[in-house]
Amino acid sequence: MRSSDPTDLPDATQLAELAEYVGLASVSRDADPDVMARTAAWLADRFALAGGTVRPMAGHPVVTGRIDGPPGAPVVLVYGHYDVQPTGDLAEWHTDPFTLVVDGDRAVGRGVTDDKGPVLIVLETVRHLLQRDGRPPVTLLFLLEGEEEIGSPHLASFVRDHASELACDLVISADGAMWRPTEPSLSLASKGLVGFDLTVRGAARDLHSGRYGGTVANPLHALASLLASLHDEQGRVTVDGFHDGTEEPSPEERAMVAAAEFNEAAYAAEVGGDAVFGEPGLTSLERLWFRPTLEVNGVSGGGPYTVIPHVATAHVTSRLVAGQDPEAVAAAVVRHLHAHTPTGVALDVTVEPNPVPAYAIGPDHPAVRAARAALEDVYPDQTVLFARIGGTLPATALFEDVLGAKTLFFSFATADELHHAPNEFFRLPRYGQGVRAWTSLLDRLGEEATLR
Amino acid sequence: MRSSDPTDLPDATQLAELAEYVGLASVSRDADPDVMARTAAWLADRFALAGGTVRPMAGHPVVTGRIDGPPGAPVVLVYGHYDVQPTGDLAEWHTDPFTLVVDGDRAVGRGVTDDKGPVLIVLETVRHLLQRDGRPPVTLLFLLEGEEEIGSPHLASFVRDHASELACDLVISADGAMWRPTEPSLSLASKGLVGFDLTVRGAARDLHSGRYGGTVANPLHALASLLASLHDEQGRVTVDGFHDGTEEPSPEERAMVAAAEFNEAAYAAEVGGDAVFGEPGLTSLERLWFRPTLEVNGVSGGGPYTVIPHVATAHVTSRLVAGQDPEAVAAAVVRHLHAHTPTGVALDVTVEPNPVPAYAIGPDHPAVRAARAALEDVYPDQTVLFARIGGTLPATALFEDVLGAKTLFFSFATADELHHAPNEFFRLPRYGQGVRAWTSLLDRLGEEATLR
Repeated sequence: MRSSDPTDLPDATQLAELAEYVGLASVSRDADPDVMARTAAWLADRFALAGGTVRPMAGHPVVTGRIDGPPGAPVVLVYGHYDVQPTGDLAEWHTDPFTLVVDGDRAVGRGVTDDKGPVLIVLETVRHLLQRDGRPPVTLLFLLEGEEEIGSPHLASFVRDHASELACDLVISADGAMWRPTEPSLSLASKGLVGFDLTVRGAARDLHSGRYGGTVANPLHALASLLASLHDEQGRVTVDGFHDGTEEPSPEERAMVAAAEFNEAAYAAEVGGDAVFGEPGLTSLERLWFRPTLEVNGVSGGGPYTVIPHVATAHVTSRLVAGQDPEAVAAAVVRHLHAHTPTGVALDVTVEPNPVPAYAIGPDHPAVRAARAALEDVYPDQTVLFARIGGTLPATALFEDVLGAKTLFFSFATADELHHAPNEFFRLPRYGQGVRAWTSLLDRLGEEATLR
Repeated sequence: MRSSDPTDLPDATQLAELAEYVGLASVSRDADPDVMARTAAWLADRFALAGGTVRPMAGHPVVTGRIDGPPGAPVVLVYGHYDVQPTGDLAEWHTDPFTLVVDGDRAVGRGVTDDKGPVLIVLETVRHLLQRDGRPPVTLLFLLEGEEEIGSPHLASFVRDHASELACDLVISADGAMWRPTEPSLSLASKGLVGFDLTVRGAARDLHSGRYGGTVANPLHALASLLASLHDEQGRVTVDGFHDGTEEPSPEERAMVAAAEFNEAAYAAEVGGDAVFGEPGLTSLERLWFRPTLEVNGVSGGGPYTVIPHVATAHVTSRLVAGQDPEAVAAAVVRHLHAHTPTGVALDVTVEPNPVPAYAIGPDHPAVRAARAALEDVYPDQTVLFARIGGTLPATALFEDVLGAKTLFFSFATADELHHAPNEFFRLPRYGQGVRAWTSLLDRLGEEATLR
């Protein structure tokens, strides 16, 4: 079977099922609880063949399931989510977000690639395996949540409370995305995340810039000085201790970068020409994959009138790489900020709760080897790339921490399919490719002695 | 007559007139044109004894008037305004803003001290002079505008278009305020003003801080670095050429500071303890009276989420002192900003139109000498202080430029009477003191050979 096989397109029944699923407007932010409950029920019903069950909880319910493989087979937990992002400005959509529209080999609709299409690929794979063998080659557990797009506020407590029910050798996430559409890829690492809220206070109240100017500390001056102290002019983070534990990319990692044949010019064109900027001596892809960041996300204070505001605020987040301890980084940043606070103002820094460490799964992990082989089955003419993610996937840390299991990202979404944006779409050939790849992957995992 | 003379309180008729005037809710921002027209008509009617006339124009109308003194007497233009600030949050008012309430020796209401009470003092003075002599000792022109609280957008063109009608030897402003309630004072100088709007642009759109972090210039980092470059850590402005033309305070000016017996501790308590901060080697009052400022008034960009915003903005204003050329300062600041713009971003700076130079009237100007003597007549036991204003009075530059006349500020408001704030009030004894002082001032001006 070739990757361009026309049978990779979903058939009319499969497409109708996807349309029905996308039609359930399961927006988790400011959600309609009825719609969330109906979506969970619909999904549990589809997964009935694997014991699909709606599990009420503090937030939107999760859907769980279990279907046994042969005795002694590995246990694999499949993670995904049924909630979707808000539509954003409807005027920017060319079609109704909750009506699936097929446009050539693309299907358009909110959530179609994040994460409804990819989850139905797993469902179709299970159906195929049951039809073929009467059972899957591994024992499958399912954990499909309804709060991923709002930061999974209740997932951790559900996993902790049901750790023995969810015990497994490996997690496979149906959420995520191939790096780019031109070749198959596997993401082996993602960055950690720790956030900071800064408040700088000066005088007791806002003051007239004429009546008081030059005699009181201006919190906006102090904040500018504080934020400017975080990087040198070449973009290096200057916080003492920030880089502790980080390492130079290994030869294997450098080879990953070379293999990716990253197009700097195309990247520059995408982000907007002159804006490409970062630590010297590295390519954009090396910066993205291997370097921690400390980005100021927001600053606010005063306004366009003659005031000396008495408060100014900023939000700052750091993306962490392997070797960095989130707590140590947070402490280093807080220490730096206090040490650099100018005279005349008071600084309050809050570290956001639950910082997430960086995550990685090795290229030689049996699950990665199996996934690579499975992709090579489906895309025989193409090299499987290893990629890394600049973003953060908090569930990986949770599963490693509570279940002791690594997470393999195995999604047939692609990163350019307008996730979270208007006109989100999914490449329909990925549907059949996905079913074939999941089948091959689970078959191969069934043959592994250990997945840890 | 002593300054505590009980006859300084307005009588029932005068109080009723002030209550009627305050009852006209002439808020010029988002104004009701009918209310503005009714207020102007009411005022013109009161000033009928001096030819009061409503003059329709592009914005809210002005009220003008003229009443001749003896042939050859100096011509004095009295400036004031009939518009008031918005009320702000009504919940913060203890009484209805547009119902005059007398509380002990204070009258409370929006605009009572800024500038309705002080204008009625002038009216009462004219009545007194007419009754006494049948004419004032100088020729009086009146220019009472309805847009002072929104920046006088149409005053300049009215003055230019009617320059010969408004030709005068001196302007006296009934707007302004005594520096503090403890002694009479005259303001001899005010600072200039030039404003800047900064926009820093990075990538073509907002970017995910994980997917792009560390590879693109962050406009918030660039803006922080730019704004931090404007001052050194001790608060000195570091812009090359910014201080050109400024001079050290003269011995006379140092004496003004000493005479003011400024209470640093009380000032610190007022602005909020640790916030007192400024250029080293100067007291707060010296900084306020003699040093130019460059204050960041507002900064905005991104928000409290994981974004790299593509735009960040700031508003910056400079208060200028004598010797500084507004255009030269604007050019110096723009040059500095462009020279300090970090790699990867584009800076756009707009200089606000119509910068205002600093203004001063000398302590030996005949109008200042007359005003000081008039205040000494009314407050015989107290020293008349000379003060300066950290704020900006654009009309002074206009009158000097177009009419060639200096402006004397002669107001019986006091700076602590909650101008622009809830529960604005006016000290009622200032009413009679004001009438006596204006009478003495105009008598003295009538005896001067020249007021230029």
